[in-house]
Amino acid sequence: MSQEQEKKVKTSAGRPRNAGANKPQGYRRPYHQKGRRPQNRRTEEGAEAPKMRIVPLGGLGEVGKNITLYECQGDMMIVDCGLVFPDSDMFGVDLVIPDFTYVVQNKEHIKGVVITHGHEDHIGALPYLLKQVNLPIYATRLTIGLIKNKLEEHGLLNSTKLVEISPRRKFRLGCFTVEPIHVNHSIPDAVALAIECPAGIVLQTGDFKIDYTPLSGGPTDLEAFAEYGRKGVLALLSDSTNAERPGFTATEKKVAQSFASLFRRADKQRIIIATFASNLYRIQQIIDLAVENGRKVAVSGRSMANNTKMALELGYLHAPEGVLIEIEQLNKFPPEKVVLITTGSQGEPLSALSRMASASHRNVKVGPGDFIIISATPIPGNEKMVTKVVNGLLTLGAEVIYESMYDVHVSGHACQEEQKLILTLTAPRYFLPVHGEYKQLKKHAMTAASLGIAPKNIHIAEVGQNIILSEDSLELGEPVPAGALMVDGLGVGDVGNVVLRDRRHLSQDGLVIVVATVDCHTGEVLAGPDLVSRGFVYVRESEELMDEARRLVVQCFEKCREENVRDWNSVKTRVRETLSSYIFRRTKRSPMILPILMEV
Amino acid sequence: MSQEQEKKVKTSAGRPRNAGANKPQGYRRPYHQKGRRPQNRRTEEGAEAPKMRIVPLGGLGEVGKNITLYECQGDMMIVDCGLVFPDSDMFGVDLVIPDFTYVVQNKEHIKGVVITHGHEDHIGALPYLLKQVNLPIYATRLTIGLIKNKLEEHGLLNSTKLVEISPRRKFRLGCFTVEPIHVNHSIPDAVALAIECPAGIVLQTGDFKIDYTPLSGGPTDLEAFAEYGRKGVLALLSDSTNAERPGFTATEKKVAQSFASLFRRADKQRIIIATFASNLYRIQQIIDLAVENGRKVAVSGRSMANNTKMALELGYLHAPEGVLIEIEQLNKFPPEKVVLITTGSQGEPLSALSRMASASHRNVKVGPGDFIIISATPIPGNEKMVTKVVNGLLTLGAEVIYESMYDVHVSGHACQEEQKLILTLTAPRYFLPVHGEYKQLKKHAMTAASLGIAPKNIHIAEVGQNIILSEDSLELGEPVPAGALMVDGLGVGDVGNVVLRDRRHLSQDGLVIVVATVDCHTGEVLAGPDLVSRGFVYVRESEELMDEARRLVVQCFEKCREENVRDWNSVKTRVRETLSSYIFRRTKRSPMILPILMEV
Repeated sequence: MSQEQEKKVKTSAGRPRNAGANKPQGYRRPYHQKGRRPQNRRTEEGAEAPKMRIVPLGGLGEVGKNITLYECQGDMMIVDCGLVFPDSDMFGVDLVIPDFTYVVQNKEHIKGVVITHGHEDHIGALPYLLKQVNLPIYATRLTIGLIKNKLEEHGLLNSTKLVEISPRRKFRLGCFTVEPIHVNHSIPDAVALAIECPAGIVLQTGDFKIDYTPLSGGPTDLEAFAEYGRKGVLALLSDSTNAERPGFTATEKKVAQSFASLFRRADKQRIIIATFASNLYRIQQIIDLAVENGRKVAVSGRSMANNTKMALELGYLHAPEGVLIEIEQLNKFPPEKVVLITTGSQGEPLSALSRMASASHRNVKVGPGDFIIISATPIPGNEKMVTKVVNGLLTLGAEVIYESMYDVHVSGHACQEEQKLILTLTAPRYFLPVHGEYKQLKKHAMTAASLGIAPKNIHIAEVGQNIILSEDSLELGEPVPAGALMVDGLGVGDVGNVVLRDRRHLSQDGLVIVVATVDCHTGEVLAGPDLVSRGFVYVRESEELMDEARRLVVQCFEKCREENVRDWNSVKTRVRETLSSYIFRRTKRSPMILPILMEV
Repeated sequence: MSQEQEKKVKTSAGRPRNAGANKPQGYRRPYHQKGRRPQNRRTEEGAEAPKMRIVPLGGLGEVGKNITLYECQGDMMIVDCGLVFPDSDMFGVDLVIPDFTYVVQNKEHIKGVVITHGHEDHIGALPYLLKQVNLPIYATRLTIGLIKNKLEEHGLLNSTKLVEISPRRKFRLGCFTVEPIHVNHSIPDAVALAIECPAGIVLQTGDFKIDYTPLSGGPTDLEAFAEYGRKGVLALLSDSTNAERPGFTATEKKVAQSFASLFRRADKQRIIIATFASNLYRIQQIIDLAVENGRKVAVSGRSMANNTKMALELGYLHAPEGVLIEIEQLNKFPPEKVVLITTGSQGEPLSALSRMASASHRNVKVGPGDFIIISATPIPGNEKMVTKVVNGLLTLGAEVIYESMYDVHVSGHACQEEQKLILTLTAPRYFLPVHGEYKQLKKHAMTAASLGIAPKNIHIAEVGQNIILSEDSLELGEPVPAGALMVDGLGVGDVGNVVLRDRRHLSQDGLVIVVATVDCHTGEVLAGPDLVSRGFVYVRESEELMDEARRLVVQCFEKCREENVRDWNSVKTRVRETLSSYIFRRTKRSPMILPILMEV
């Protein structure tokens, strides 16, 4: 919309019904095309429109670590608090969490943390946040179940207030009114959030897709999205994970059909299915089919065992008496009478499926009598690990179903047509694609633009940006402190770039340590120099190389002494340079060289 | 075929025309179904059929490192000699080559090495082989050009005999007669090999696909495959890379069409295209389109520059006078007048495209005026690197075409229907799927079985197997020494499991070195103990941890002295154990702990 048009409509309020006579009954022009105000949010001519701030602290330009902070009139709330798994070049790092500095700085203002669903990229960093700031957590029932497990491990369960929320039941957090909206995803009890405050309504989808025939819980509550669209949505923050994929994500029912035919095909074989421990829809399907086919069901893998136990207790999984058996009982039944559900669909090296593939699982020996289904798609970066597992299982003689053509998995995220549907129903003034790498955010932005949202109203945000929104404008304030903290063992943030650089260096060519004891007065070498190496060469087969290296170091010390160099740092530098250039010339390798001098 | 049937046909010779009256004219029953002998290879009743051996020394259960040894009547020949790039857990390893022990042991018998085409996984290990055994190399013209570059780098050019071969021109190597057969692939001058010896005919496809409308050189010589099929093929070794993909690989012409429309779409923008430096078809297409669109062409990246130069000299690339410009001249032309062809389509961190994406390329600054096409599919394991580059380029404002839907790349390998065609035309008695991970070999085996080849005549071989073939049998002899050697810098095979294990350990949690100078008589610590760490924690922020660690080590030394422990290895072990358990308790990390004692 041009500046002028915008001015013209600035004083218009409400939503004129049937704008445009030639439009079909019920047609409404989208908010972003009309410059329409949210209902009941008309400001006095000349008075400044109320503002709100959206501060993404993660989840942009990355897949995972989702966390967004909202502020209006001094009140703040947080949506989600996830982790991201480290890239392969983050040597030794276990997980990565958001930098919570800004949250800690503003802890007095924060009314609570609302969680959209129970995946790690939305709840995984909660324990680390709660160790710094005690905040109440709002989540749906299953999500709370998953959070509880997590808090228990970290000893935070008793000190944390957990509030159960449910779709279509609004709750207040300061000046915010939040309404959870039921959405389909690959885990039950996922919600989008309609966040209403004096500045307007923001819709944050969380992770979602639209499944018209889900296995339970009904399709995404499109009506709610439409209602908010009618009321007027100031900004939409929508899931971009599948923004590169045209069309629609297939229904979970398709998987059910494939499974049914694969169960028939498995016939007399034992069935082993690997899937995500959180995909309770998938697990329920498998249990149902097992019952139909007269098979018992066992589970393998710690998270699979924990999740199914909890889901059974909370009523998210149902199994007739006697269907579920312990994994230790598995071998008491003939192969055609059991199904094993396992973790490891991503080829994780320590997972149950990986152990089966390398013939090192305690209870499960895979062989020609096994029919194995990998009901997942490799997450980018995991392809090679999954391939390794598939190769292992095939080599053991099992039949393995892993290719996309078998429809044994569907994504949990909306593709382009679903994204368009949500954009159209909500007709936001401003659109912020979230949850994705830059390339996905960009695609989602292009999809939005293709629907007529003005490019100036589409904002690809960055972590730490301070987005100030009002009826009339989207502006960027001073960025806030934000970023990533690496967690390694018990250490949070104590592994930084220096440590990582060293680990990378050590991983490439190992190290050579030169130690010598020197007389602090005369500079004479009293013991050594000794060379110790690790990860550099196989020393027993490289004696000549190491002997010559030592000889050069001895010479270097002697020369320093002759030249009366007594500054130990200079001596070390010379040793390092001599050794490093010799080693590179001989081996074309650059190990870390660590001279250590001990003065006596 | 049953044992009995086999016996019955044992004395039948030649190929009966129109076997089966109800078959259409010209139908021939495949070799494997008839137990038919190769023509002119009839043996006396009772005399033992001549045997040959096939010994794969690489390329099975892996993608790359292709090398196969053939033996018959004491003569040997080798097909291909490739390398494989290291897995991500082979820290610091540059490349992996076959173990040549068996070749060296038999060097007197080997008549030559025949190369199917010039990709690294088929020629990359040649220099390492030639350093051990001087053998003549047989290859087509372009392949020789690529090998020459490689041998020159290793100073082997003058000492190596290179023999140019061409399709349909047979040559002899001892008792072997070899006929190269033209095949389509993603590099020109690729051939399959028909290897005839007293034991029969073996067809090895090399890497291939079937393109009915290639950009040059004509389709795969199906007639030659059919001719050999008629003569009788004892064994077929066929490319399994795409064995998991149904259907046909699309023609390179499809890419040409996409490129044409993308060039129109790029309009006034500068065009940058990343592709494989060896895909001269692709490069020629781009040059042709550039000429049509009045654009100059520059290339970026060392291998791209080397390859195009060589291909222009040898006549595999053609460009009108003045079309090719130096990369330094690029900025002298307006954006709509240039195309840049670059390396880096796999997101290799040091490649030209990666440097452009991180705004660190010397000659090319990427921005909103750029239209970038990534004309390749990420090789498994490279997905994240490619994504990083795409994100970088998009962030700089460029338009980037990278998705499969744009048809900017086609595979160089045959899919299932093409594999079926070759299997049908050649109708081999024995089938050995080659070039692939186990899962691909297995699929290819299943495809062959679906065509009626008896499972007992299909053999999924392993590296180092000694496959003894005759008219009547496929047997396995004693396996030969075979495996992988890691190349790190100038070292070949000096990085083994111990070194790799140390590098892995160091990469995960770094190391802590404890040094102390001790009196060799009294056991008194004269200097230290000092603790030096790298890649463990950021020491400045962990002073307390390190101080406490040092205190424990001091205690440990004192205790050893009190207890009169003078065996330095025992002291070291106690120091290591004390420190390691303290550090794990405090940090949940397990750095390598390296106690070094110097005696004075």
